Amino acid sequence: MFFSFDGIDGVGKTTQIERFVGWLRATGREVVTCRDPGSTPLGEKLRGVLLHSGPELLIGPTAEMLLYMAARSQLVEECIRPALERGATVVSDRFLLANLVYQSHAGGLDRDAVGAVGTVATHGLLPDTVFVLDLDPAMATARRQGPDDRMEARGDSYRERVRQGFIAEARRDSRIVMIDAAGSVDEVEALVRDAAVSRHAELAAS
Amino acid sequence: MFFSFDGIDGVGKTTQIERFVGWLRATGREVVTCRDPGSTPLGEKLRGVLLHSGPELLIGPTAEMLLYMAARSQLVEECIRPALERGATVVSDRFLLANLVYQSHAGGLDRDAVGAVGTVATHGLLPDTVFVLDLDPAMATARRQGPDDRMEARGDSYRERVRQGFIAEARRDSRIVMIDAAGSVDEVEALVRDAAVSRHAELAAS
Repeated sequence: MFFSFDGIDGVGKTTQIERFVGWLRATGREVVTCRDPGSTPLGEKLRGVLLHSGPELLIGPTAEMLLYMAARSQLVEECIRPALERGATVVSDRFLLANLVYQSHAGGLDRDAVGAVGTVATHGLLPDTVFVLDLDPAMATARRQGPDDRMEARGDSYRERVRQGFIAEARRDSRIVMIDAAGSVDEVEALVRDAAVSRHAELAAS
Repeated sequence: MFFSFDGIDGVGKTTQIERFVGWLRATGREVVTCRDPGSTPLGEKLRGVLLHSGPELLIGPTAEMLLYMAARSQLVEECIRPALERGATVVSDRFLLANLVYQSHAGGLDRDAVGAVGTVATHGLLPDTVFVLDLDPAMATARRQGPDDRMEARGDSYRERVRQGFIAEARRDSRIVMIDAAGSVDEVEALVRDAAVSRHAELAAS
């Protein structure tokens, strides 16, 4: 099984991934975690370029999308596919959906073009279930810690377009599950777990 | 007008580009030169990753292709399109054709997938004329100076597949002109110039 988590920054992805992975591991499963972009030497290098380079490094929207795709391609080849092939469960912090939402819905690139490049980059491998943690951007900003990275520095109206993009994608793809992230950490954890069980019957038995 | 030069390494591209650009400039044209990957801060950074990183940095064939595309996208947006829009002539050391040949014909990626990503990366902008300097790989190796980069280290049989890829692409795209690069620098320069004049009548008058 391959799960990914997505949503605007500050929504609590890191915490919820830790909780979810802990729960899966308690059932005896091998769980491989990764982050996209990242988790390979190439991916971490590109993550640095994408999120932590200064404003003097111009990166156009198409080039930005292609760099995310390059990192994702290497992540699939080096980490995700080998893990799935040996029967492990994979949990990824973001995946292709983030590109569709940030670069297309919120960034103006053609949605089908991004989708087509995504199919080439991943060779068609998609998560079985994508949990999108959904929260009002102002609440997410209040929760968030640490300095803004290059995407977060784009402001609240950008984040609202991102949120609407997640909602639009969820309407067209049944693998995407919107999770109300306004509650406590324990409440959100329970929502994620319930959604996982209802989508993957074998998890209920374990 | 937008020209690019391509061909296996050692074939004399750098010298022929200098000669061709000098000839164009002597007619009073503004000529912008660039290299792909490269010629933007992002492109030069990616060039370093693609050509000069050590073997410990794994880069799969699809990720490699996407990195070239990201560099090319930024090159189009930051350099080539602005130059063409103000009426300058652009001469590029390599362009999309190199990806089709190295990553698809010689590298095994699906040709149409690479072409489709190329259209997204360049927004459909292609050179008016591509000069492919054609030479037996063994002769090119003998001409070449300096240490091997990551692509050149792949050996003569790889270079022969690359050469055959250029020939196959030239058969399907009339913008590609094969130039016999076995002669002297002056002889090859004359072949390039004649081909440019026969394809772009306005060059004859200048």
